[in-house]
Amino acid sequence: MTEEATAPRTGAQIGVTGLAVMGRNLARNLARHGFSVAVHNRSPERTRRLVAEHGDEGTFVPGESLADFVNSLERPRAVIVMVKAGGPTDAVIEELVPLLDAGDIVVDCGNAHFADTRRREEALREHGLHFVGTGVSGGEEGALLGPSIMPGGSAESYAKLGPMFESIAAQVDGVPCCIHVGPDGAGHFVKMVHNGIEYADMQLIAEAYDLLRAGLSISPAEIAEIFRGWNSGELESFLIEITADVLAHTDATGQPFVDVVLDQAEQKGTGRWTVQSALDLGIPITGIAEATFARSLSGHADQRAAAARAFPDTPVWQVEDRDAFIEDVRKALLASKIVAYAQGFDHIQAGSQEYGWQIDRGAVASIFRGGCIIRARFLDRIREAYDDQPDLPTLLVAPYFAKAIGDGVPSWRRVVADAARAGVPTPAFSSSLAYFDALRRDRLPAALIQGLRDNFGAHTYQRVDRPGSFHTLWAGDRSEVAD
Amino acid sequence: MTEEATAPRTGAQIGVTGLAVMGRNLARNLARHGFSVAVHNRSPERTRRLVAEHGDEGTFVPGESLADFVNSLERPRAVIVMVKAGGPTDAVIEELVPLLDAGDIVVDCGNAHFADTRRREEALREHGLHFVGTGVSGGEEGALLGPSIMPGGSAESYAKLGPMFESIAAQVDGVPCCIHVGPDGAGHFVKMVHNGIEYADMQLIAEAYDLLRAGLSISPAEIAEIFRGWNSGELESFLIEITADVLAHTDATGQPFVDVVLDQAEQKGTGRWTVQSALDLGIPITGIAEATFARSLSGHADQRAAAARAFPDTPVWQVEDRDAFIEDVRKALLASKIVAYAQGFDHIQAGSQEYGWQIDRGAVASIFRGGCIIRARFLDRIREAYDDQPDLPTLLVAPYFAKAIGDGVPSWRRVVADAARAGVPTPAFSSSLAYFDALRRDRLPAALIQGLRDNFGAHTYQRVDRPGSFHTLWAGDRSEVAD
Repeated sequence: MTEEATAPRTGAQIGVTGLAVMGRNLARNLARHGFSVAVHNRSPERTRRLVAEHGDEGTFVPGESLADFVNSLERPRAVIVMVKAGGPTDAVIEELVPLLDAGDIVVDCGNAHFADTRRREEALREHGLHFVGTGVSGGEEGALLGPSIMPGGSAESYAKLGPMFESIAAQVDGVPCCIHVGPDGAGHFVKMVHNGIEYADMQLIAEAYDLLRAGLSISPAEIAEIFRGWNSGELESFLIEITADVLAHTDATGQPFVDVVLDQAEQKGTGRWTVQSALDLGIPITGIAEATFARSLSGHADQRAAAARAFPDTPVWQVEDRDAFIEDVRKALLASKIVAYAQGFDHIQAGSQEYGWQIDRGAVASIFRGGCIIRARFLDRIREAYDDQPDLPTLLVAPYFAKAIGDGVPSWRRVVADAARAGVPTPAFSSSLAYFDALRRDRLPAALIQGLRDNFGAHTYQRVDRPGSFHTLWAGDRSEVAD
Repeated sequence: MTEEATAPRTGAQIGVTGLAVMGRNLARNLARHGFSVAVHNRSPERTRRLVAEHGDEGTFVPGESLADFVNSLERPRAVIVMVKAGGPTDAVIEELVPLLDAGDIVVDCGNAHFADTRRREEALREHGLHFVGTGVSGGEEGALLGPSIMPGGSAESYAKLGPMFESIAAQVDGVPCCIHVGPDGAGHFVKMVHNGIEYADMQLIAEAYDLLRAGLSISPAEIAEIFRGWNSGELESFLIEITADVLAHTDATGQPFVDVVLDQAEQKGTGRWTVQSALDLGIPITGIAEATFARSLSGHADQRAAAARAFPDTPVWQVEDRDAFIEDVRKALLASKIVAYAQGFDHIQAGSQEYGWQIDRGAVASIFRGGCIIRARFLDRIREAYDDQPDLPTLLVAPYFAKAIGDGVPSWRRVVADAARAGVPTPAFSSSLAYFDALRRDRLPAALIQGLRDNFGAHTYQRVDRPGSFHTLWAGDRSEVAD
């Protein structure tokens, strides 16, 4: 932890190690915004190429070795690590720590699991170092032109990082898409839930497309036009926009692009992590779960082939009023999407409570508005809803959303019912409607489940009319005993 | 690891430590079947009480200390540990290990997570000991009168344990509900999935009850009669039987019992574990997931109250043909239940492949037929299906089940559609139908999802017409490049 005599008097303001496309673009974004950026890569060719190709965009300070790189930074040092999640991240951190001094900041901008981030934050805290797990959304383009940035870690570290991150983040209505989300793993947690919502959003869009195509027997190009129209209303969002784009695209074979793509979707880690975490926290994020499982299902080619052979019959489906059906699907999509976001924001709240993060959900909605994949017009409404009522029990009852759902409910019911009758799978639409109906239902049949559990396992139950736990002597005289 | 001079020349055949109700009943069951059973409990009162109250049922060898207990066992020793999962189990194992000799067997009959079982098996193997994680289903009564027993661990350990376990297990058609499931954690894994299926089964029953009550405006006692009728057909099962029992029960207040029970179901660990594991393995167990989340949802009382206030309107629902509707619900229940079991058995297969367990699914179906909560007539059909075709791609296409689903599909569609229109939440019914329709669908909109992912994140896609991974230059001239 000694400082070389040759270190510059004032060093670079921030460093980036790991110069694959995401790291390179983040470094360029920082340089373009006037920050001096130390850059380093394990194989120095990448460092040299970055400086050769983009050196004119700002001040880059290349470091051949990790020690050079670290020594070129002003104190307290801020080092962004942009390498693969898991082992590679741990390896770089291990190498970095002996080179750093108390008060320095290590920023992990990869897609780490928040539990790993909590572990690393704790480990580095014992060295007097700040570890800042940071969610970065927006892909390669976002990293360069303005991502949504979700840093966790200490308030102290945000004092140094905040001005830089807020400067390079996407800006919406003059507000940067970056806040200090909360301590330790809060940033990566919120990024994880963001990705989970993205899963649900894409699955809902896919079901809407499938319904339009099956119900109206129209081409992907015609459906692209419908989505383009939707994008000028309440559904306006990046994903709706690119859906129109993808559906309108024609493959070199002359076929619609979407028809030449293999219909097997991959699921990377974050959707799965989101559902697993929600199970731990007891938050029913059914939309995200159905979306994640729908991707898994699509990949089971052998099962699909066998089922298609065994059950070839599809009911005839003839939509009578084309325009009314399109409007029904639009409203069902909006209502289902509101459910998915409501569930995701419940999950954020539950994580915040469990881990003591004090996350401001309105502010989170605000930073989702730009840069990231789920950016959408109605995130303004989510922000307003939580700003108006920070302890809002569910987004569904906030005035704007309650009205959108109320307006959409007859359409939503028709679409889910028609799809069931027509044999078009709508797992996310129907699961979202079931969630809505369950949440608002006066009495749930969970009472029967509790009765069954008491019957076979003496698990006891509570009563509606007085406190306490009770057990019925099912094998005896069926009297009730207090537990 | 010395043997006391006072140890009996031939000792007890098996030991049980931890004499709460499950341990006590297992010990009594063993003794009643002619095995000499060493018994031990941390506080010796329980040991003394067992011998005092039930000593006449067989041969109990009480041990005051753990060392006495261990020394009273014949070699190789077999010790059943029946304490709380987690820390308490580890604590007992730690105390036991120094008292045992190479070749001895430690059996954990608690509800451990299979990953813990794998860890313990590996640790004990290094001491030359066998560790046998064993699922035991059937609750207190099953433990005493004949449970379903699912031991993992080594073949060598099963050579000693098998004859005893097969003797005390439930017997169906002269076949014991116990097999050697597979190595290390296989037993606890299968028990976990059993519990997951149990979650789905109960949720489906609860939805059927709710539909009958909402659609027909009849009393729980009348619904009990319907379930009683169903229990003499294809749906015959323990859970249908006790559902009739619970629904027929009248509370001391004079109200139907099910109406005085608080409608908030608890979710213990195993349902959650099952879904988390299925996510890791990429198996879409949507029925179990919806059932687990439905329980979580029921517990969110504040959200439910807010949603009930915001959305008080329920559509009017008037079923016209009472008998036809009951038959529709029965068929929908059977079809949804087949989906839940198909998903669960897929999960078992995936776990078996991932961990190298070589699990025989037909044999597993066979040991679920008695003793356990999900025992049901149609498990014979599942056993037959896998016995006939061990590599069956999905249970849905086995002749018996394909016919049951084929017969039920129009009813299933009507019920899910009617419930959606009527505002009765049927998350498990509708999710199961969506799974069925997705699995058999020629083209899934997963192709669109892959297109979106390539558009915003260059995630690439595969094509239907040639192998390889491809990327479209969306921001460029939209030509396609091979990855």
